[in-house]
Amino acid sequence: MSGLALLDYASVLVFALTGALVASRAQLDLVGFAFMACLTAVGGGTVRDLLLDRHPVFWVGQPDYILIATAAAVVVFFTAHLVESRYNLLVWLDSFALSIAAAAGAGAALSLNQSGVIVVLMGVTTGCLGGLMRDVVCNEVPLVLKQGELYVSCAFAGAFAAVIATRLGFDELATLAACALICWALRAGSLVFGWRLPVYKARPPRQ
Amino acid sequence: MSGLALLDYASVLVFALTGALVASRAQLDLVGFAFMACLTAVGGGTVRDLLLDRHPVFWVGQPDYILIATAAAVVVFFTAHLVESRYNLLVWLDSFALSIAAAAGAGAALSLNQSGVIVVLMGVTTGCLGGLMRDVVCNEVPLVLKQGELYVSCAFAGAFAAVIATRLGFDELATLAACALICWALRAGSLVFGWRLPVYKARPPRQ
Amino acid sequence: MSGLALLDYASVLVFALTGALVASRAQLDLVGFAFMACLTAVGGGTVRDLLLDRHPVFWVGQPDYILIATAAAVVVFFTAHLVESRYNLLVWLDSFALSIAAAAGAGAALSLNQSGVIVVLMGVTTGCLGGLMRDVVCNEVPLVLKQGELYVSCAFAGAFAAVIATRLGFDELATLAACALICWALRAGSLVFGWRLPVYKARPPRQ
Repeated sequence: MSGLALLDYASVLVFALTGALVASRAQLDLVGFAFMACLTAVGGGTVRDLLLDRHPVFWVGQPDYILIATAAAVVVFFTAHLVESRYNLLVWLDSFALSIAAAAGAGAALSLNQSGVIVVLMGVTTGCLGGLMRDVVCNEVPLVLKQGELYVSCAFAGAFAAVIATRLGFDELATLAACALICWALRAGSLVFGWRLPVYKARPPRQ
Repeated sequence: MSGLALLDYASVLVFALTGALVASRAQLDLVGFAFMACLTAVGGGTVRDLLLDRHPVFWVGQPDYILIATAAAVVVFFTAHLVESRYNLLVWLDSFALSIAAAAGAGAALSLNQSGVIVVLMGVTTGCLGGLMRDVVCNEVPLVLKQGELYVSCAFAGAFAAVIATRLGFDELATLAACALICWALRAGSLVFGWRLPVYKARPPRQ
Repeated sequence: MSGLALLDYASVLVFALTGALVASRAQLDLVGFAFMACLTAVGGGTVRDLLLDRHPVFWVGQPDYILIATAAAVVVFFTAHLVESRYNLLVWLDSFALSIAAAAGAGAALSLNQSGVIVVLMGVTTGCLGGLMRDVVCNEVPLVLKQGELYVSCAFAGAFAAVIATRLGFDELATLAACALICWALRAGSLVFGWRLPVYKARPPRQ
């Protein structure tokens, strides 16, 4: 199995866990868990494949992905209520999913010889859209837009690093690892140390 | 006309009615009714066609679908305020739309000889996504995630039945009918008798 | 450069400005601005290209669009807090974006010799979906559904005019100009003079 396919599997598994955790917070039943797990797990990669016209879409050609996401949903269904702080677990699992999926997205675009701009965008899209769909559907405040945290920025930096690494002649594995590590380090730093980018604190908007 | 095309027409009509009813609850104007009716009517099937790379998308090749949805919107626009409980009507119409669309989605995947997992997923996708888009755009609580009701589960069970029926050698018509009937019976049972799957009532999430 | 490509560039630029303004209202950081600007700028056109099976999607083949949207985001990031009423600016910029994008969408469908129904729908889709995604992701009340204002109706009327103009033998430039002007005039009239279509003021819905 190629490194890229492995990344897809890992990202599907971790995103599925986060989707099931959100389903747990919304007190859905088992099928609701599976639905949210699958939506979150394959959402970002599906948009990537549609945009790049890669057919069949990765999970249509290889239904294993769906089975993995469903299995993750079942496990979470029977264990999530045992977890002390599901929100903390969710945020940290999501940080892994973001990093792995950003690398998978950037790698897919690189393997199609897309330009640097598209590689960065595919990293951001694949990394962020699954979680964004999860939160929009469940009416949570999207993690992707939480104020005072790095999120899109992490995927951006990771995918940008992947472009640089490719230009410098790194092989595929090193490129993808650099992307995932930089993305995750920034996200973790933001969660633990409060790293952030500056914002303009404007007056509250009047409507 | 094939049974599959007939199902697509019926699902478009009934989903359009539900979309227009939601527009009525949001007090939109006539064009808003038509927009919501079309979005709801073709949303699920469009995602199905994009995922399966079926081009042209069903309503692009056959604009009749759009005209039907628009006609439904016009009828609802002039009559919805006469209905005593638009919410009840909405929920029941939606149960028919869900069942018909789940059968249409599963049937499309079966006609492309997709694997069982994909057939089930296409049934769920086509059945649930139109209504989900309708509710997300209009800021209603998505019916698909309403606690204590079967919804995704019905589409899942129906599509699963379609896979079994095909394996048993049923012809297309019987397969699609089984899918729609099982889906609708479960949804109706959930609405009338309160059938549901168990959930874990965890402590309220702390943030 | 063809008139159609020029319209795409203009619509990307103006939609990107509106996306960045919404990011400013949500107090996101610079990368958040760029994300919202890109999502809004290419959202509608991307859906149009996927539906019509035009590959590569316009910004995948021509990454300039993304650079323009990002540049717009940077400019807005450093200037938006100086604006007295960002909401007013947003609404008016959005009216230009709506009109230009509706023309771009209708023009793309016309250039593929699609039927009149599809031309109208592509005008509405391209015009409205970018702004709809922007508002759904940022939890704003979608402008597209704001009660008592014309919005979808403007894109509808503009795209309808484009169909008529083509039938009457107008050339491409005149057709697209007619579409954009009619759309914008209706939207501006609705904002300034309160033009609207009638709605049924039903009793408040009971749930």
